[in-house]
Amino acid sequence: MIVAVLGAGAMGSALTIPLSDRGHEVRLWGTKYDIEILDRIRRGLPHPRIGVRLPKTVNIYYPNELKEALTGAEVVVIGVSSVGVAPVSEQINGLLGNRTFIVVLSKGVEEINGEILTMTQVISRYARIPSERIVYVSGPSIARELAHRLATAVVYSSADISLAEKAKREFETGYYRITVSDDVIGAELSASLKNVYAIAIGWFDGLAKRAGGLEMNNAKSAFFAQAVREMAYIVDVMGGKKETVYGLSGIGDLIVTASGGRNGMFGMLIGEGLFAIEALEEMKKRGAGVVEGYIAAKTLYRLLSSNVDTRRTPLFINVYKVLYEDLDVLEAVKKVLRSIST
Amino acid sequence: MIVAVLGAGAMGSALTIPLSDRGHEVRLWGTKYDIEILDRIRRGLPHPRIGVRLPKTVNIYYPNELKEALTGAEVVVIGVSSVGVAPVSEQINGLLGNRTFIVVLSKGVEEINGEILTMTQVISRYARIPSERIVYVSGPSIARELAHRLATAVVYSSADISLAEKAKREFETGYYRITVSDDVIGAELSASLKNVYAIAIGWFDGLAKRAGGLEMNNAKSAFFAQAVREMAYIVDVMGGKKETVYGLSGIGDLIVTASGGRNGMFGMLIGEGLFAIEALEEMKKRGAGVVEGYIAAKTLYRLLSSNVDTRRTPLFINVYKVLYEDLDVLEAVKKVLRSIST
Repeated sequence: MIVAVLGAGAMGSALTIPLSDRGHEVRLWGTKYDIEILDRIRRGLPHPRIGVRLPKTVNIYYPNELKEALTGAEVVVIGVSSVGVAPVSEQINGLLGNRTFIVVLSKGVEEINGEILTMTQVISRYARIPSERIVYVSGPSIARELAHRLATAVVYSSADISLAEKAKREFETGYYRITVSDDVIGAELSASLKNVYAIAIGWFDGLAKRAGGLEMNNAKSAFFAQAVREMAYIVDVMGGKKETVYGLSGIGDLIVTASGGRNGMFGMLIGEGLFAIEALEEMKKRGAGVVEGYIAAKTLYRLLSSNVDTRRTPLFINVYKVLYEDLDVLEAVKKVLRSIST
Repeated sequence: MIVAVLGAGAMGSALTIPLSDRGHEVRLWGTKYDIEILDRIRRGLPHPRIGVRLPKTVNIYYPNELKEALTGAEVVVIGVSSVGVAPVSEQINGLLGNRTFIVVLSKGVEEINGEILTMTQVISRYARIPSERIVYVSGPSIARELAHRLATAVVYSSADISLAEKAKREFETGYYRITVSDDVIGAELSASLKNVYAIAIGWFDGLAKRAGGLEMNNAKSAFFAQAVREMAYIVDVMGGKKETVYGLSGIGDLIVTASGGRNGMFGMLIGEGLFAIEALEEMKKRGAGVVEGYIAAKTLYRLLSSNVDTRRTPLFINVYKVLYEDLDVLEAVKKVLRSIST
């Protein structure tokens, strides 16, 4: 098959490894933010974010070569950042074959003209593609590990489950295991919510430092369980399946996110006593860039406020208040502990 | 209230802190294995396993003073090791007041005369106490953290939920939060199963070393999610509630167990390439003592073989085979990955 991967960041680039192992013709197109990476790949250097050389058979396409990259592509993989999904979708609108389908790696919810949309909703609208031709990828997958061919298990979800099954047949390898689901909204919400909850789980690494160095694993684990409860409730109310939260897309992705990464580090800084704004500054100083959960908390807060009973999501609400209303983190922890569920 | 805590190990001793903070008359009775600890406590030294001095108001009772410790006790907390629960239950049989109730901290399933019993079943049988007078404690609670008054949230379960609520009213503090449930079997099975699954999650720390040092968080998280799925299935079939697994008693306790402790370390050694027997030897050398999950795997294997469809618990079965049939751990991982659920 001809597979065009749009976005030469960590995840899009990592996926070219199993795709190449499966013998597909892989094309990697980069946005204007990816030019430096594309140059490196072309020179045979390791990809700076995943630490491996891409297979020589992967063909590189520069930002002005989108049309060439898409010509004849039977699958288009979208792996740009969440803010990039709408513009890229507009660009590919009209350039896809009638039977071409889309596989989405991007995560998040985006507010566009006052409306909150998931990734597949953005693509469906701006690329004018029915949702039955879109497959959403979720589950615990650190790009660097996948790129090193270390065992990774993910979920492919689609409104048309036979499409998810088709994608699985084409993309799966011994180390890249794929399961399928028809719960796209559950997978998308889980992927977005987990970044917010990972911040709260990170608090305890900072609070523990303040408390004299003893770890706070009891509280951390209790908050983890509470996060899962709230995610299941939210997904259920929003029309998804609780089971999605209890599997790879929810628990699996939450655990990998909470055990490292920027959201957790940001949470730790807040736990140490910094205000959110100060913690963001500190993240910049450390070169750690964007904190997805910080941005997602605001968008999701709007989504949840008008759709769910937020008395049943005390952890989410208190994270939001810590991030945007300067609620003291110790106060937030106390409040959540008082309302924690079995 | 007069509360007698039986067993001066980590968890029983830690509980004396919130109990004392609540103003109860606390009596701590030790078994013959606890004598050294009792001596230390009596001399005002820190408890060796939790690193704190117990409140001066806690009264110490030696193995031959059980009757004195129980006289007038309104609550008896059982905190001995799982193998000690049957003998202690026999010892207290007939020594309890008519309205005295029991709170159980011990975890595990025990095979007694060919029959597999949970902790509350052992107590009910050997102390001749109806299950409606027993409260079972589960959830993520590292004794050392509780003893330092760090936030801890647990579940009190009882066949008589009003008893669980009563215990909650008497035992809860600001840092020791209690939620209640009527799903005793779900809590007990979760507490026992999690030790087995923590071994498998630990594998990846060893496998990662073999793979050149890159972490294997993707696979670890996928196995964590699979463990939750299997625990929910098992608990459901055995008459408990899936919700118990999805909360503090299941996910919460699994995460705290997998993020440290002996089961994880044992799993890591196996991941590095040792056979189970060799890994047990190595644990002894490191002074790490008993690996609960190793023993539990055998007992639970018998329980599951005759009660559930083990095709739906591939992770459990493969852990068992690695531990008792010398199945190669890499082979086990491959098999589980092939059968992993969404």
